[in-house]
Amino acid sequence: MGTISFARGVPAPECLPVEQLAECARAALERDGRTILSYGSSAGYGPLREWIAARHGIEPGRVFVTNGSLQGLVFLSQRLAVGRRVLVERPTYDRSLKILRGLGAEIVALPCDDDGLDPDVLERELSVGEPPALLYLIPTFQNPSGRTLPLERRRRICELAREHGILVLEDDPYGLVRFEGEPLPSLFELSDGETAYSSSFSKTISPGLRVGWFVLPEQLAREIEAAAIATYITPVLLGQATVHEFVSRGLFEPNLERVCELLRLRRDAMLDALDRELPGVRTTRPDGGYFVWLELDGVDSTDLLGRAEASGVTFVKGPDFGGDPDTARLAYSFVSPAEIAEGVARLAAVLETRYADAAS
Amino acid sequence: MGTISFARGVPAPECLPVEQLAECARAALERDGRTILSYGSSAGYGPLREWIAARHGIEPGRVFVTNGSLQGLVFLSQRLAVGRRVLVERPTYDRSLKILRGLGAEIVALPCDDDGLDPDVLERELSVGEPPALLYLIPTFQNPSGRTLPLERRRRICELAREHGILVLEDDPYGLVRFEGEPLPSLFELSDGETAYSSSFSKTISPGLRVGWFVLPEQLAREIEAAAIATYITPVLLGQATVHEFVSRGLFEPNLERVCELLRLRRDAMLDALDRELPGVRTTRPDGGYFVWLELDGVDSTDLLGRAEASGVTFVKGPDFGGDPDTARLAYSFVSPAEIAEGVARLAAVLETRYADAAS
Repeated sequence: MGTISFARGVPAPECLPVEQLAECARAALERDGRTILSYGSSAGYGPLREWIAARHGIEPGRVFVTNGSLQGLVFLSQRLAVGRRVLVERPTYDRSLKILRGLGAEIVALPCDDDGLDPDVLERELSVGEPPALLYLIPTFQNPSGRTLPLERRRRICELAREHGILVLEDDPYGLVRFEGEPLPSLFELSDGETAYSSSFSKTISPGLRVGWFVLPEQLAREIEAAAIATYITPVLLGQATVHEFVSRGLFEPNLERVCELLRLRRDAMLDALDRELPGVRTTRPDGGYFVWLELDGVDSTDLLGRAEASGVTFVKGPDFGGDPDTARLAYSFVSPAEIAEGVARLAAVLETRYADAAS
Repeated sequence: MGTISFARGVPAPECLPVEQLAECARAALERDGRTILSYGSSAGYGPLREWIAARHGIEPGRVFVTNGSLQGLVFLSQRLAVGRRVLVERPTYDRSLKILRGLGAEIVALPCDDDGLDPDVLERELSVGEPPALLYLIPTFQNPSGRTLPLERRRRICELAREHGILVLEDDPYGLVRFEGEPLPSLFELSDGETAYSSSFSKTISPGLRVGWFVLPEQLAREIEAAAIATYITPVLLGQATVHEFVSRGLFEPNLERVCELLRLRRDAMLDALDRELPGVRTTRPDGGYFVWLELDGVDSTDLLGRAEASGVTFVKGPDFGGDPDTARLAYSFVSPAEIAEGVARLAAVLETRYADAAS
């Protein structure tokens, strides 16, 4: 085996429903080609907006579909976060951090425990200074930690947001990628739709189609649409129409079930391998998503990564997400169960060498 | 007939090769689905980059393919133009103006004559102050004017750019949409590839696929790629792969010929109608592209537009492009020859009313 990547937070190739999407792309173009191939609404393909709106129980006008949800976060941050205070979880998604930093936001990273963000920590932060422009959260199977915010914390965070009049953005790409346990209500649902919500089809259908969506307060949706027109006129409707054809044919749920099963096997392989090879390392045990988070008890993950790469296994070091120096994110989504076993064994060997070095 | 739009600078629906693209999308996904449906290079779909590079006689590493060329202009302007001086033609494309203005560029709009930008005007501007960050030009079948820069002016502008060490961006979406006359060499070709060049498949295949490209100096291409990663990770590869399948099947040239013929009929209908109905109005007579430019001899086009809309015909007023108050852009691309005849007749009636009002 070549280098084994626990760095790539992407689905394994066998998760992608290639043949079905090929047929859906053709059918969508044959049915509605003149719309798909022309300029259209900057907020995305109408029929897909309607499908998403129906799932959320809202008006289609609040749904903004974009070329991947990160692009939407750029628009939203340009509108809200420039030079302002933004609260995030610590750790959190590195690309979101980078966008906020690039726009000159003052990022306040709130420490999290095994259950994610503690509402008491949030409440203390909200008691000082100006209200933040945004509270950015990934409450379910978080990237990078794999943590999920329990129901009671969700409720209290929604209450605090309402009391203090702050906008929460709930970034939820992994919520449907659940292997076991009961789904929790989203912050969006608990707040009666006051929370801004974003998700995508990257983890449930295909990342390459680049179809993300936002559910926003109506006025904010209008403003983001104007930014989209000025940037790309219309998003790529072909990907969105292909997704719409896929969901219209009833392929979404069966595909999601298939993908979850493929990913569950990988999650199991990862946790088994970690229990076997690295019993002393603290790890999260997520019920879904792509990631586990390691606490390496003082071992510097930047140093470890260099040694690991030399031994044929990669991951992303925790500090990239604002985490402590001795933390690391391992993605089990891209690699096979056999590669996961081998990769963790390699990582364990590197860690043992490290301890041996330290002892010598 | 309902309202006739000379405002929409988009291809008529019959220009879109719907059936062929439906088959190309399916075939591309069946052949290369796992690549197309995953994250990939932020600079676009590899095989399409190679095809574009071969046409330009350059390395694929200099080709940056994005979700419509406007998105690329945003990246380039964010990199080069923030708070800096940018020279443009007067008039020029309104969306480009808006992007540059939004980034706080100091826009200097250089007056143009029937042959576009006069190199003497450029030379005078370059003799004062700091060198501009960018000279943005649409040299062929310009939007909005329909004007084309003659060979001798192209040569001199390239010389001036080299002498003064300034970057020219040649925006060329319409160059291939030529109905008659010999193609002129691009500034990119005349400058031995020193000019930055952008174009798209919006006018030659379909705007809705949102496939634009830039050819840039290598270092600048790297920087723009980094901005693209931070914004959308990967552009929508499905549209790009569909375009690649289309060109690989040899469909590009025959489709372009078909599109040019459809548009030529519309251009002829527009010029015939203008000659017939508005013999006193000065208009450009382009050999290609989408637009004619009217000089209305003192008639305020904002005022005229209001009356025209009330009479069932629309256009875009010249000031939107930085033009004089008595100028207007008429697009002949979207409407049928019969609609063009009727629309110009309506416009003529409004203009006569206007003169009658003025005389009364």
